[in-house]
Amino acid sequence: MDDEVLKIKNKQVKMPRFKTILVTGGAGYIGSHCVVDLLQAGHDVVAIDNFANAVGDEDGSPALQRAEQITGKKIHFYRADLLDKPQINDIFDKHPIDCVIHFAALKAVGESMQQPLLYYQNNLLGMLNLLEIMRSHNCYQMVFSSSCTVYGEPEYLPITESHPIGNITNVYGRTKYFIEEMLKDLSAADEKWNIICLRYFNPVGAHPSGLIGEDPTKEFTNLMPFMAQVALGKKPVLTVFGNDYNTPDGTGIRDYIHVMDLASGHVAALNLLGDNHVKLKVYNLGTGRGVSVKELVEVFEKVTGTKIPLKYVARRLGDITAMWADATLAKEELGWSTKLSVEEMCTDFWRWQTMNPDGYPKKCKKTSVIVNGNS
Amino acid sequence: MDDEVLKIKNKQVKMPRFKTILVTGGAGYIGSHCVVDLLQAGHDVVAIDNFANAVGDEDGSPALQRAEQITGKKIHFYRADLLDKPQINDIFDKHPIDCVIHFAALKAVGESMQQPLLYYQNNLLGMLNLLEIMRSHNCYQMVFSSSCTVYGEPEYLPITESHPIGNITNVYGRTKYFIEEMLKDLSAADEKWNIICLRYFNPVGAHPSGLIGEDPTKEFTNLMPFMAQVALGKKPVLTVFGNDYNTPDGTGIRDYIHVMDLASGHVAALNLLGDNHVKLKVYNLGTGRGVSVKELVEVFEKVTGTKIPLKYVARRLGDITAMWADATLAKEELGWSTKLSVEEMCTDFWRWQTMNPDGYPKKCKKTSVIVNGNS
Repeated sequence: MDDEVLKIKNKQVKMPRFKTILVTGGAGYIGSHCVVDLLQAGHDVVAIDNFANAVGDEDGSPALQRAEQITGKKIHFYRADLLDKPQINDIFDKHPIDCVIHFAALKAVGESMQQPLLYYQNNLLGMLNLLEIMRSHNCYQMVFSSSCTVYGEPEYLPITESHPIGNITNVYGRTKYFIEEMLKDLSAADEKWNIICLRYFNPVGAHPSGLIGEDPTKEFTNLMPFMAQVALGKKPVLTVFGNDYNTPDGTGIRDYIHVMDLASGHVAALNLLGDNHVKLKVYNLGTGRGVSVKELVEVFEKVTGTKIPLKYVARRLGDITAMWADATLAKEELGWSTKLSVEEMCTDFWRWQTMNPDGYPKKCKKTSVIVNGNS
Repeated sequence: MDDEVLKIKNKQVKMPRFKTILVTGGAGYIGSHCVVDLLQAGHDVVAIDNFANAVGDEDGSPALQRAEQITGKKIHFYRADLLDKPQINDIFDKHPIDCVIHFAALKAVGESMQQPLLYYQNNLLGMLNLLEIMRSHNCYQMVFSSSCTVYGEPEYLPITESHPIGNITNVYGRTKYFIEEMLKDLSAADEKWNIICLRYFNPVGAHPSGLIGEDPTKEFTNLMPFMAQVALGKKPVLTVFGNDYNTPDGTGIRDYIHVMDLASGHVAALNLLGDNHVKLKVYNLGTGRGVSVKELVEVFEKVTGTKIPLKYVARRLGDITAMWADATLAKEELGWSTKLSVEEMCTDFWRWQTMNPDGYPKKCKKTSVIVNGNS
């Protein structure tokens, strides 16, 4: 693992087009992995998080402290909420932010159906506040975390970016769809905006160092964290929702993408925005291959050398049979494609999980990360 | 006219199921007409307005003062903005609000395309704030002003409520569509909600007293106010957008509805909500008849005895060829249908316009309306 860290630290860095990047939701699963890549690409990172989905406190985020450890670089971190406009405004006053990568959002599909008002308030209002403050600071560059959820039940596979969107089966996905529509309207109204929406397929895996990974703060049913808990003996059985889908083995098919591939997709998007005025572009970030739940479990069993007992239960309302990306456009226009295999997704997640069976430490070291702009 | 006022004052009133109704956007065109009907139906009315689309100031709204004059009843009026949560919260603390009729919104289609962020902030955030405050005051009854714009380009005519929605040609319409979707999610998540969305077709006309009517505060292209300005000699010519549509006379076809019919549709919706737990229902409010621009102009010319010079210009981007309602559902379930003819729409609007060639007085009488809850 130390070799791994060293290898990454010494990676060649070319000068970025944007210097200072604000990463909202920077302490979260995808955010923290992306921050590692941004630092390694030579960016200054200002990260904010309200710890709705991530471990952390006033002293900072253990995930981001480890991102600093991996990269040997400093992060400006603020515990901040996008619903608190004056606070966000202060951060823009303090840092010369060139571009925003906007991860921050509530993201639990089931919870979103039970608490739609909370989801609309957080996700839509957070975005609207951010856009207003960006505009007032003359910052018009953004990469937005969208989701393949916006496609709803696929009309064809693999899904291209021109597949119809909007026929969505859950509130979480609807917040992503509404925001995409707002961004399109914004970009049509004011050509200063330069925005890329990245539609993620199913991010799994962890940083190869084992230092950062997915650490859900709420009750979760996400396949890989759940499976790892079973492998660790912390949960007795893996619940699989539906084995009567019209797929070869009856389980749902998804396009799992390694979180480090996803992170590098953001750096590629930043580079495109830095070189071109794209106005608004949308890219799928996926591998282009569909993998069934059963197949993923088998790879995970092989990699970990454990047996995962399965319990099949009824399909979840709103779950899709099969979905995978056509990832051609990102390859052509971002020069990006995935490099990491399903085996690596499982290996890296398992490394993270065995090194951190209880997730991140609940308390930060005080010395490491720059909190509220002060070391 | 005095006879008219007297006749309305003496109309039979049966006890309403809800006592106190909050009317947001109460000083606006549709809001003020609806307030008259609400008062006549025996409701207590708390009206709020931020005067984004209506004439008024700290002393109140001339439209609402005239609504008091017409009905002989008092209105509790607040100059208030839905983006100011503490202020709205105070109003809910002060009044035992049973039901909300939510008119308040920015509504200019062209402006919405130029300032999407402003429209999303105002219309979505205003609604989200309102819903949160309603819930915290245990008020779950709402009538929401939606629009036939949510249907986009019609797939069939007349349009029923089950026509697909969402393929919308402008930002204003998108805010209405997003809110309808939010309300559906809210009602699915928490069965305490009891909501009716009314999809208005094209409201025109004015109160038969001539005391209240449409007085656009911004630059407008709305057909009837514009036509009336031409008839008054204040504008030289009526601009008609497109005479090459695939319609019998080449001009666009709409379902014009008298604003007093629209107002009575709200009272009918309140009665349904008061008697039934509908969860969420959607009704078209239209006459069920399509009228072309040319036909409307001809009726207006006949009624007013003036000649309206027309100037045909190119179609506006996003304008629909033809649209009219199937109004069957509202008839069956609300027991409501329109009663007023195109002639009456023109006659009443013309009475309002000739009695008030410059619209409302820009200053309120201090004595009439109850402002901020104090007489």
